[in-house]
Amino acid sequence: RELLCIFGTGDLGRSLGQRLLQTGYRVVYGSRRPHSCDPLPQGAQVMSHTEAAQLATVVIACVHREHYDFLEAAAPQLKGKVLVDVSNNSEKGLYPESNAEYLQSLLPEASVVKAFNTISAWSLQNGSSDAHRQVYLCGDSAEAKQAVRELATSLGLSVLDRGCLSAAREVEDFPLQLFPQWRLPLCLATGLTAFFFFYLLTRDVIYAYVEKDKDISFRIMVSLANKVFPIVSLIMLSLCYLPGVLAAFIQLYRGTKYRRFPDWLDRWMLCRKQLGLLALGLAFLHVLYTLLIPIRYYVRYKIAENVVSVIRENRTTVFDTTIAWRSDSYLSMGILGFALFVLLGITSLPSISNALSWREFSFVQSKLGHLTLFFCTLHTYLYGWDRFLRPSTYKWWTPPGYMLCLVVPSVVLVLKLLILLPCMDRSLGRIRQGWE
Amino acid sequence: RELLCIFGTGDLGRSLGQRLLQTGYRVVYGSRRPHSCDPLPQGAQVMSHTEAAQLATVVIACVHREHYDFLEAAAPQLKGKVLVDVSNNSEKGLYPESNAEYLQSLLPEASVVKAFNTISAWSLQNGSSDAHRQVYLCGDSAEAKQAVRELATSLGLSVLDRGCLSAAREVEDFPLQLFPQWRLPLCLATGLTAFFFFYLLTRDVIYAYVEKDKDISFRIMVSLANKVFPIVSLIMLSLCYLPGVLAAFIQLYRGTKYRRFPDWLDRWMLCRKQLGLLALGLAFLHVLYTLLIPIRYYVRYKIAENVVSVIRENRTTVFDTTIAWRSDSYLSMGILGFALFVLLGITSLPSISNALSWREFSFVQSKLGHLTLFFCTLHTYLYGWDRFLRPSTYKWWTPPGYMLCLVVPSVVLVLKLLILLPCMDRSLGRIRQGWE
Amino acid sequence: RELLCIFGTGDLGRSLGQRLLQTGYRVVYGSRRPHSCDPLPQGAQVMSHTEAAQLATVVIACVHREHYDFLEAAAPQLKGKVLVDVSNNSEKGLYPESNAEYLQSLLPEASVVKAFNTISAWSLQNGSSDAHRQVYLCGDSAEAKQAVRELATSLGLSVLDRGCLSAAREVEDFPLQLFPQWRLPLCLATGLTAFFFFYLLTRDVIYAYVEKDKDISFRIMVSLANKVFPIVSLIMLSLCYLPGVLAAFIQLYRGTKYRRFPDWLDRWMLCRKQLGLLALGLAFLHVLYTLLIPIRYYVRYKIAENVVSVIRENRTTVFDTTIAWRSDSYLSMGILGFALFVLLGITSLPSISNALSWREFSFVQSKLGHLTLFFCTLHTYLYGWDRFLRPSTYKWWTPPGYMLCLVVPSVVLVLKLLILLPCMDRSLGRIRQGWE
Ligand SMILES: Cc1cc2nc3c(=O)[nH]c(=O)nc-3n(C[C@H](O)[C@H](O)[C@H](O)COP(=O)(O)OP(=O)(O)OC[C@H]3O[C@@H](n4cnc5c(N)ncnc54)[C@H](O)[C@@H]3O)c2cc1C
Ligand SMILES: Cc1cc2nc3c(=O)[nH]c(=O)nc-3n(C[C@H](O)[C@H](O)[C@H](O)COP(=O)(O)OP(=O)(O)OC[C@H]3O[C@@H](n4cnc5c(N)ncnc54)[C@H](O)[C@@H]3O)c2cc1C
Ligand SMILES: Cc1cc2nc3c(=O)[nH]c(=O)nc-3n(C[C@H](O)[C@H](O)[C@H](O)COP(=O)(O)OP(=O)(O)OC[C@H]3O[C@@H](n4cnc5c(N)ncnc54)[C@H](O)[C@@H]3O)c2cc1C
Ligand SMILES: NC(=O)c1ccc[n+]([C@@H]2O[C@H](COP(=O)([O-])OP(=O)(O)OC[C@H]3O[C@@H](n4cnc5c(N)ncnc54)[C@H](OP(=O)(O)O)[C@@H]3O)[C@@H](O)[C@H]2O)c1
Ligand SMILES: NC(=O)c1ccc[n+]([C@@H]2O[C@H](COP(=O)([O-])OP(=O)(O)OC[C@H]3O[C@@H](n4cnc5c(N)ncnc54)[C@H](OP(=O)(O)O)[C@@H]3O)[C@@H](O)[C@H]2O)c1
Ligand SMILES: NC(=O)c1ccc[n+]([C@@H]2O[C@H](COP(=O)([O-])OP(=O)(O)OC[C@H]3O[C@@H](n4cnc5c(N)ncnc54)[C@H](OP(=O)(O)O)[C@@H]3O)[C@@H](O)[C@H]2O)c1
Ligand SMILES: CCCCCCCCCCCCCCCC(=O)OC[C@H](COP(=O)(O)O)OC(=O)CCCCCCCCCCCCCCC
Ligand SMILES: CCCCCCCCCCCCCCCC(=O)OC[C@H](COP(=O)(O)O)OC(=O)CCCCCCCCCCCCCCC
Ligand SMILES: CCCCCCCCCCCCCCCC(=O)OC[C@H](COP(=O)(O)O)OC(=O)CCCCCCCCCCCCCCC
Ligand code: HEM
Ligand code: HEM
Ligand code: HEM
Repeated sequence: RELLCIFGTGDLGRSLGQRLLQTGYRVVYGSRRPHSCDPLPQGAQVMSHTEAAQLATVVIACVHREHYDFLEAAAPQLKGKVLVDVSNNSEKGLYPESNAEYLQSLLPEASVVKAFNTISAWSLQNGSSDAHRQVYLCGDSAEAKQAVRELATSLGLSVLDRGCLSAAREVEDFPLQLFPQWRLPLCLATGLTAFFFFYLLTRDVIYAYVEKDKDISFRIMVSLANKVFPIVSLIMLSLCYLPGVLAAFIQLYRGTKYRRFPDWLDRWMLCRKQLGLLALGLAFLHVLYTLLIPIRYYVRYKIAENVVSVIRENRTTVFDTTIAWRSDSYLSMGILGFALFVLLGITSLPSISNALSWREFSFVQSKLGHLTLFFCTLHTYLYGWDRFLRPSTYKWWTPPGYMLCLVVPSVVLVLKLLILLPCMDRSLGRIRQGWE
Repeated sequence: RELLCIFGTGDLGRSLGQRLLQTGYRVVYGSRRPHSCDPLPQGAQVMSHTEAAQLATVVIACVHREHYDFLEAAAPQLKGKVLVDVSNNSEKGLYPESNAEYLQSLLPEASVVKAFNTISAWSLQNGSSDAHRQVYLCGDSAEAKQAVRELATSLGLSVLDRGCLSAAREVEDFPLQLFPQWRLPLCLATGLTAFFFFYLLTRDVIYAYVEKDKDISFRIMVSLANKVFPIVSLIMLSLCYLPGVLAAFIQLYRGTKYRRFPDWLDRWMLCRKQLGLLALGLAFLHVLYTLLIPIRYYVRYKIAENVVSVIRENRTTVFDTTIAWRSDSYLSMGILGFALFVLLGITSLPSISNALSWREFSFVQSKLGHLTLFFCTLHTYLYGWDRFLRPSTYKWWTPPGYMLCLVVPSVVLVLKLLILLPCMDRSLGRIRQGWE
Repeated sequence: RELLCIFGTGDLGRSLGQRLLQTGYRVVYGSRRPHSCDPLPQGAQVMSHTEAAQLATVVIACVHREHYDFLEAAAPQLKGKVLVDVSNNSEKGLYPESNAEYLQSLLPEASVVKAFNTISAWSLQNGSSDAHRQVYLCGDSAEAKQAVRELATSLGLSVLDRGCLSAAREVEDFPLQLFPQWRLPLCLATGLTAFFFFYLLTRDVIYAYVEKDKDISFRIMVSLANKVFPIVSLIMLSLCYLPGVLAAFIQLYRGTKYRRFPDWLDRWMLCRKQLGLLALGLAFLHVLYTLLIPIRYYVRYKIAENVVSVIRENRTTVFDTTIAWRSDSYLSMGILGFALFVLLGITSLPSISNALSWREFSFVQSKLGHLTLFFCTLHTYLYGWDRFLRPSTYKWWTPPGYMLCLVVPSVVLVLKLLILLPCMDRSLGRIRQGWE
């Protein structure tokens, strides 16, 4: 069985060594203090760096970049060997060149391969399959990469080749990134939430305080939240489907699919998934808030008060079938919309979307997605009902939130309908032919 | 580094080229118009088809089948080369033979390999890991397939060998399929839903209209939906577990596990997953509809009306502990059933079922599955309670929906209990030994 | 194309053969009764064991261990061949040595490789991708393992090398295990649930019966369940985050990260995921139980009764803004806590955690996890509100359940706050440097 050398008996060195030993490799450690190491994985040997390097053809340097200088001493032993760089930095852009390139420049006669830096010592050691099973590989020597690829594969990790060593910078940035694709959608969601929060705070709470001298500030916690969240959710949902429609119009106008979209549109299209998932999260909150309405003290008080007043004032109440229809309809639309929404969420789980063919995926995401948007929009229109026409709705001459939030979805749906007209559909089909 | 040739500078050609360049390959395009192409990926060269083909040993034809005839001109250059066919058709059965076989017949001296047709240009280009990471491979030459396999692996795609070139037809059908396994369960669900909808519409709405002259059509939106969905869900859930029981009885009767089941049973057993997931979807809708009952205008009106009438008629209401027990019990059973239902759904997510051993998977799906069925059935029995015996329940001499829907689950549970009897269990165990 | 030999025409033999034929291999079966077999996969040949073995270099023994003795007769033909052992036992520890080692001892001149034992015949045959796609491999000959690895890879299975043949015992235990990592958390959950159930039963139902002579036993089904579940959930959630804090203090005390944690702490840290998911399941039940409170007969009766008594006694009710604030706040905290809880659950789906970088994963699990704990704890404190100070709360001198359950979370949050103090944070950072 093959012998591998690991430099450094730290966390990663030990975990990697242990897993390699399990898989049947022989492992020898190179350490500064070969005789005073903490207990190492059973079956591994420890010696000085130079001795260890001599024995193996593949050397894994599990040492921080800051200490790479000691490797120069072992240069003769490392000549022609495969040297694996696993290091990460604590932040981006700390050094002018990537760690791997720096290592290569220190040891020009070794074949440096960047690998394993996205794997965590903790999960290696515990055999847990959580996160980070993907190993990104890069290096200038094809044989060296092949050797490392085999090593990683036999550890049960999946390998993705990123090309030559100059890609190391990118690979080193992976473990440092924190949801880069979610940034824009998150900012948008925060901005919209803040805007609508203050807008509705003014219209509801402050208006009541100023005009009616009533303190209804307690409504912030639930009633206001339950307006802001669905409103932002609906807007973000429609922003998912707007770029697709815009793209179609641009293509129709240009008559070809081969010219790139403007940059902003491209970026927008790439963050639709995140927009959609955030919208789902907000819709989820809306549903939870809605479902516990009847538990609230305020609501219970109101209902009881109502019954009491009916009796005390000896009023009679009449059952209004129209209101019943309307109330049941908007709730039904909401439920159907939400169920489809969850379905969209489920199909965007990586393990499910991987199991779907492209046609299936776009059937769900595009066709059912527009249906979701339609249901949610209808839900809101039905909720508004005849209040659109009542002047009392427009406190301080401002429209209520749900009217504002209906603008974008309505536009998207109308534009989409236009595209579905036979004449438009046909020309678009011709342009996109072969696009799938 | 290896040089690859791509014919066609369209969507797929460009995306594939870009990814291959990233991975460290060199790429040369063959095009009809080598000098007037839109901007191609950086680092790629463009030339005529014949020139490009001469340089590489692997040629990827990113061209529609309709244009394959031009390849005959390049036949001499393609002799002995690996020619990758990526094409899809716009519908099934458009041509008598598969595209790959057609290509092979045009160029009998090239080794045609079908691959990449399930990958989408869009996701290749955007490095998104959505959907379609699986490459299906087929071809008659083992070496050619090996070359393509390496290429695909280095792109980070997972490869599945489907055998020789005659499997190409099947491979070409993959991207065209639209949930083939869901068709039967979906039809069943639609059929049952339609049946119960009209059945309950008659019993509830039309009956009230005809016999009592009351218009309660508004109930369609929520009350009726909230009967139809759980009823269909329960039936479909029990249909998941019926074939397993039938299979057991057939095996017991035959005394061997080695004879194939009748065809209908086989097909039924293969769509149990889809049946179950649809049942989960419908149960989810039932739960949502149920939870918002107290928000409905109609319900609020009814409750208020009730209180008002108690006071106006000066009635006293008595708290009935039995009703309290029954109401709380059926709700509790429903909740437990639903929670287990969701658990079944979660374990059928591909990424989770992959992490489970066969014994674990069948413990959840089979043992907990039957428990789910039991809870849901009990929920419905407790909901019915003493109404089974009241004549007023049987309007127009028809039983209510929940009684109808209890038939299949009850049968399944009884049969399952029979199988669990020690004597039956032992003989079944002996027959299935080694089946796992 | 390569020829493979399969011994045994049982379930696994047939399914494996069928899939191998699909992939382009040629298959020959070795059977006791070559002429009276049930229909085998199309294209396969059947002959006697010795004849079949002679033709191929790889032989897969799809036979139970109990029948391995017949193989000795074919020893000459199997000499130098790769012999794949796929067998499982019906329970752990049935035999002194593993099946593969036993087979190797029977046929010392063959290269035995253990493989495929975690794959199910049923799923192989139906091409379903459910469960068990992972093949564990072990064996003493590197070439033999390589041959089997290629075979498995071409079937589209993923392969994990577990080292030499002595690992076979471990590999054979995989299909027999039943959620080993869930055992401890499940026991804990059951124990806590039982304790709190009896505690609250005594305090609520028995107390009412003894002191007030009221039978409120019907409350067990919902009210009691809806206390026990959230209480246990909150405790288990906090137990997820306690070991991390303890670990930090131990490391601070020791001044190094290189000494192993005590064993109990290690084991505890490895089952945090399961603890957390169980807590999520219980919280899910709590939410369902809570949301259907207004549907319960008891609750409806109470509310109606209340309104009736207000009128009959001609009381006036006053709206208390403080109560409204408190009620809305604790519900809001609960919802936010639950939403984050679900988010934690979603990110621990294998397919999602695989897509996250380590930093992202620990941002969600650690940062947002503590936030979740904070929200849930606040929810419970706000729910308790001023009852902490009311003597009537302490029936029979025992505190109510929600007070008991606040102890651990409060401790965890306070300790975590301590660690976040700049001085502590800095020294911890220095100790853990490079840990990632
Ligand atoms: C809960 C939820 C989850 C979501 N999850 C995802 C997800 O996982 N992944 C995801 O992508 N989206 C996701 N979305 C966003 C959205 O559903 C999809 O992007 C959806 O496919 C958009 O449909 P469409 O019809 O507008 O766009 P598409 O059908 O994709 O068309 C978009 C436009 O882009 C252009 N276009 C696309 N590809 C090409 C190409 N190769 N060449 C030229 N033009 C092209 C076309 O001109 C087309 O008009 C999610 C949304 C929600 C609400
Ligand atoms: C929400 C939900 C999700 C579900 N997801 C899934 C899913 O992901 N995958 C899935 O398969 N099902 C799924 N189901 C359906 C169902 O739960 C399972 O199929 C379940 O295993 C059936 O249990 P059983 O005991 O009836 O059948 P099993 O234990 O599978 O037994 C079925 C019968 O088939 C026969 N049989 C099976 N295999 C063999 C064999 N190799 N040789 C001879 N006989 C054999 C046996 O005779 C046995 O009687 C789901 C159901 C629900 C409600
Ligand atoms: C719904 C839900 C789902 C969950 N899913 C998961 C899951 O999928 N996976 C999971 O792991 N947890 C899961 N958890 C549990 C929990 O969220 C995480 O374990 C979380 O990371 C703990 O955070 P922490 O800050 O306490 O611990 P961490 O940030 O992990 O730190 C724990 C302590 O361990 C020590 N430590 C960890 N690794 C090392 C190392 N390599 N060397 C030395 N010391 C080390 C550190 O000293 C640290 O103090 C889940 C919890 C919930 C509620
Ligand atoms: N831990 C992870 O989860 C993880 C994940 C991916 C990548 N990485 C990368 O792996 C590398 C090692 O990480 P680690 O967590 O193992 O770090 P570590 O625990 O701090 O270990 C570093 C090791 O380097 C050696 N070393 C320290 N100072 C040295 C010096 N001056 N000269 C020579 N050798 C020295 C020491 O080994 P000896 O005492 O034996 O000489 C020490 O054990 C880092 O580059 C890190 O970015 C780590
Ligand atoms: N796009 C996808 O997502 C996708 C996915 C899987 C499979 N496929 C398959 O890949 C193939 C190409 O798809 P595509 O989307 O790239 O199509 P495309 O964008 O329409 O490009 C086709 C290319 O073929 C060349 N071509 C066109 N007419 C030709 C002719 N008469 N003679 C020779 N060459 C001609 C052109 O390249 P030059 O101008 O350079 O000659 C053109 O760019 C199709 O078979 C398709 O089924 C596509
Ligand atoms: N089924 C699964 O899902 C699965 C999964 C993983 C591992 N396995 C393992 O695969 C092996 C076979 O399982 P299976 O399900 O295929 O079992 P099976 O259906 O019972 O088939 C066993 C086969 O072994 C042969 N055989 C029986 N008695 C024999 C004897 N005395 N001497 C020689 N050959 C004899 C028979 O083939 P002939 O009549 O042709 O001789 C028979 O078809 C077992 O070790 C099992 O643990 C099975
Ligand atoms: C704020 C609170 C929210 C609560 C809940 C709702 C869910 C939606 C929010 C999704 C957040 C996902 C974070 C993923 C992190 C990430 O970057 O994940 C990264 C991955 C990988 O992305 P790439 O493959 O594009 O690189 O992204 C995902 O695929 C995320 C998939 C999310 C799936 C959502 C599934 C919802 C299913 C069930 C819904 C439950 C609702 C219940 C109904 C009553
Ligand atoms: C109608 C509306 C429904 C809403 C919601 C509920 C969910 C269930 C419906 C499942 C639909 C799955 C479509 C998959 C597409 C497909 O073909 O997917 C194909 C895949 C791959 O199948 P194969 O591996 O068999 O090829 O199938 C699946 O594995 C589907 C798994 C579905 C998992 C459901 C998980 C539910 C988890 C959480 C539930 C949330 C409920 C919330 C509680 C309050
Ligand atoms: C009791 C009832 C519960 C109901 C529902 C809630 C969910 C949580 C319980 C999780 C149980 C998971 C069992 C997995 C089996 C296993 O061992 O699975 C094994 C896998 C693999 O583990 P390893 O990778 O560590 O080996 O473990 C998992 O990864 C489990 C992930 C669970 C994900 C939960 C996702 C929740 C998402 C949606 C929530 C829906 C809530 C709806 C809101 C309204
Ligand atoms: C289970 C599903 C749903 C139910 C039961 C439901 C119910 C409700 C209710 C009762 C209201 C009125 C709230 C109030 O009186 O303050 C409401 C408002 C609203 N809903 Fe939904 N809804 C659901 C799903 C959705 C979805 C998926 C969306 C889309 C994102 C949505 C968007 C809205 C909007 C925009 C409003 C108006 C908010 C306002 O300004 O008051 N709803 N919904
Ligand atoms: C959270 C879980 C659940 C709750 C709270 C719940 C609650 C209810 C309620 C309140 C009713 C009466 C509805 C009415 O008055 O019209 C009902 C009926 C019913 N439920 Fe459930 N349920 C749950 C889960 C389930 C599940 C998982 C199933 C199984 C599929 C199911 C099947 C049924 C059936 C068949 C009926 C009878 C429908 C009818 O004809 O009225 N329930 N449920
Ligand atoms: C949608 C989210 C939630 C809502 C609407 C909610 C609502 C409630 C309500 C109404 C109660 C009072 C129950 C009663 O009167 O018996 C309660 C109690 C409680 N909740 Fe939540 N909750 C939520 C989430 C959570 C979560 C995630 C936890 C943490 C695990 C939690 C922990 C508790 C605890 C410990 C109690 C006290 C139980 C008792 O002894 O009565 N809740 N919650």
